[in-house]
Amino acid sequence: MFERLNHVGVATPSVARAREHYARLFGPSAVGASFDLPAQGVRVCFVDAPNTQIELIEPLGDASPIAAFLDRNPAGGQHHLCFEVADLDAAIRDAASMGARPLGEPRLGAHGTRVVFLHPREMGGVLVELMEASRAGH
Amino acid sequence: MFERLNHVGVATPSVARAREHYARLFGPSAVGASFDLPAQGVRVCFVDAPNTQIELIEPLGDASPIAAFLDRNPAGGQHHLCFEVADLDAAIRDAASMGARPLGEPRLGAHGTRVVFLHPREMGGVLVELMEASRAGH
Repeated sequence: MFERLNHVGVATPSVARAREHYARLFGPSAVGASFDLPAQGVRVCFVDAPNTQIELIEPLGDASPIAAFLDRNPAGGQHHLCFEVADLDAAIRDAASMGARPLGEPRLGAHGTRVVFLHPREMGGVLVELMEASRAGH
Repeated sequence: MFERLNHVGVATPSVARAREHYARLFGPSAVGASFDLPAQGVRVCFVDAPNTQIELIEPLGDASPIAAFLDRNPAGGQHHLCFEVADLDAAIRDAASMGARPLGEPRLGAHGTRVVFLHPREMGGVLVELMEASRAGH
């Protein structure tokens, strides 16, 4: 079963400029440092809203999974929704029983816990990330 | 200043089918009844995640503001992010000072409080809804 919305993933052509934008919207202290995840082809930064986070995502390199999204949406935009699950393997089995298709094998995500993406086709057009919740919270 | 994420707006060609989908993801008790807002050209339904809501939105009529989105995204998808603000008029002034453009005048939204949308162009490609938070919570 899906649990809390861990974050909304928002693609951007520039995390540096997006950090300034979100600092004006949520206050400078809400905006974390940016960091690169070269194995995943992204630069990311988390912004704290009071009840969830926004993950800003910039492509690193032409092979980045974000590059095609930005080709279609040059200004950026909403990219995915990440929901926490207690047991990722059980959640993948449940999702598969609904016809959902995991995009590859689970891997470690930006928060250091196991994640997997589900293809939007079976998820009402929404690219869904499932994140195994850590017991310490995000 | 933006406050909590009240909901993620998700467009769908069928709220009825989407309700079944989200009942499997979050449990049947998380899915509210659907209702029509003819003045706004939408049928909506709220789904409770533990920390926020998902607003399912189906177009009512060809003039619906959701119709063009579904033309581009026939399966549906993420449509907008709704953030709470303490004072909508002050938030609109702040947003305008950043170059953001309100889409029309404030009106009553699906939760019965005043809302306004901001054009995605100045918001990093994200269609943003601002909702004046009621003192009784969402």
